[in-house]
Amino acid sequence: MPELRQEPITKKWVIIATERSKRPSDFPVRPEKRKGGSCPFCVGNESKTPPEITAYRSEGTQPDSPGWWVRVVPNLFPALKAGAEGPQRQNFYVARPGSGTHEVLIESPDHNSTLEEHSLEQLRDIFQMWVDRYRAVISQQEIKYVQIFKNEGSIAGASLEHPHSQLIATPLVPPVIDEELKGAKEYHTEQGHCIYCDMINHEMEEEERVVAKNEDFISFCPYASRFPFETWIIPKKHQASFGALDNGQLQSLTKIVQETMQKITGSLNDPPYNMVLHSAPSGEDEAPYYHWHLEVLPRLTIMAGFEWGTGIIINPTPPESAAEYLRETSVQKSRAKEELVWQQIH
Amino acid sequence: MPELRQEPITKKWVIIATERSKRPSDFPVRPEKRKGGSCPFCVGNESKTPPEITAYRSEGTQPDSPGWWVRVVPNLFPALKAGAEGPQRQNFYVARPGSGTHEVLIESPDHNSTLEEHSLEQLRDIFQMWVDRYRAVISQQEIKYVQIFKNEGSIAGASLEHPHSQLIATPLVPPVIDEELKGAKEYHTEQGHCIYCDMINHEMEEEERVVAKNEDFISFCPYASRFPFETWIIPKKHQASFGALDNGQLQSLTKIVQETMQKITGSLNDPPYNMVLHSAPSGEDEAPYYHWHLEVLPRLTIMAGFEWGTGIIINPTPPESAAEYLRETSVQKSRAKEELVWQQIH
Repeated sequence: MPELRQEPITKKWVIIATERSKRPSDFPVRPEKRKGGSCPFCVGNESKTPPEITAYRSEGTQPDSPGWWVRVVPNLFPALKAGAEGPQRQNFYVARPGSGTHEVLIESPDHNSTLEEHSLEQLRDIFQMWVDRYRAVISQQEIKYVQIFKNEGSIAGASLEHPHSQLIATPLVPPVIDEELKGAKEYHTEQGHCIYCDMINHEMEEEERVVAKNEDFISFCPYASRFPFETWIIPKKHQASFGALDNGQLQSLTKIVQETMQKITGSLNDPPYNMVLHSAPSGEDEAPYYHWHLEVLPRLTIMAGFEWGTGIIINPTPPESAAEYLRETSVQKSRAKEELVWQQIH
Repeated sequence: MPELRQEPITKKWVIIATERSKRPSDFPVRPEKRKGGSCPFCVGNESKTPPEITAYRSEGTQPDSPGWWVRVVPNLFPALKAGAEGPQRQNFYVARPGSGTHEVLIESPDHNSTLEEHSLEQLRDIFQMWVDRYRAVISQQEIKYVQIFKNEGSIAGASLEHPHSQLIATPLVPPVIDEELKGAKEYHTEQGHCIYCDMINHEMEEEERVVAKNEDFISFCPYASRFPFETWIIPKKHQASFGALDNGQLQSLTKIVQETMQKITGSLNDPPYNMVLHSAPSGEDEAPYYHWHLEVLPRLTIMAGFEWGTGIIINPTPPESAAEYLRETSVQKSRAKEELVWQQIH
């Protein structure tokens, strides 16, 4: 019998369709061959991007030249861009200028590396850069929300293969976050706790959906997973804003992301995925009701007419099965082929 | 400058990203070759489906045998299925049995036909069957909502190529419809009108987003289109439920769907798409605030990390441009190759 499960924060329902396919081998992923060729994000091609916003680079090297290991540039085709915030236009409809920020965070000089292959040092510096840019952009006056995300594979929306993530800052609180805030506030008012903290405690107790854990973080497949092998990575201690991440947590985050992503890519044959940061909007960074987290969304299923019409997503893989597979997938001790690159640069 | 536009009913925002690609030729669609082969929906293979629920078939022919031109069967792998509605399970989370109905509406005996190629008679009978099944299922006691939809092309989620649509009935009002009802009720309380009726009037006056119209229907690209070439088909007169469609409207619906779909498939090289019915839930079929409609969602773009994280969809094609292209695309006078098949059967 299929089951309808309710996501506890937004109250949205998913269908866990147990009669359909569910094992990793039921999702035939064909890893994409990287074509290489002329890439604007490769070392030596710095002039092909807009001037860099910031970079971690060897001492003595100049902006927009080689010597960097993480580099941030404006998106050449921004979805939102800085500009005077004009008045809302109104007749029957409402519009406003698409103001905001759109940055690309180039994660490595190595065109062919992937997130889970980075050395821990490189991965730590990527997340350090996420934090740096998050803090710099969320403090801008017109910005209400900072969305950092990563698209891996063309099916997940990656148009360039060189490893990168993106930051888009919006002049309004987006609907997904708005819904989460609304549900989380209601729960906090009624129960006096953060719903995410309670969820973490519940998952740690039940264990069956936990993928990995360390001192500061756990990763788990959420009860109302929308995607097969959907996995959330969340700090154990209450923390509303990603911008509040401290150095100890940064180390732990790096470790749990590497472990979790090696399990996901290892068991699913390098699937396309989106990795999406959820964090408090501007002005709510100390909120007792919200809790930042990363959502990893493997893109193995298709949103079809039913999903678009209803908003109810059909997921053929129960999260309990997904978590079990992922727990049993051994982490490759040394996918960190970038270690060498990193050592050479430093 | 990109523009943020607000969908007037649900208040959700989309980004119309005018600096990105936008013309039909910027979306390289590769029409899928139909493989044919053993198909459970083809004439002669009636025993490969569960026993038929109903069919339009020549007099004297037996159920589950040839002679039909539209045939309805239960989905072999139902997302929801009839069953005792057990108690909601609760610990920290909430679940309920996935009860409901999942039917497949086989649209033609011809494996290789597509919606816009059907004769007007065949297309009318397809929609007549939609209405028949809609009315039969919405009246069932445990059913709160009936979702009829069509997935065309594997990118849009079609797993079988034989032309078919689907009906999934849910034991709860789905979130997408819930949000529409909430927004529509608010508007009705404040303005005293149906927001969809006002939108239709506004679109008819402005004309720039209108694709086609006839006596009873208009089709238009909505102001806050999420998808390039997204098109809504909506009855001009106020009507909350698809189940209230009368015979005159059925003829008009058939004509506007054929014209609109010929324009969409003709200008976009047979794109993958979802066609999704939005109708009032059970018990609200006379609602003065809601208005049923069909949404056609060409699947030319990818929902990536930003969309999943925020719920804000980036659409590179302004609906005004899309509507202009579609208006200028001439309808192929005779794609109706199925005419012959239809005449043979009758």
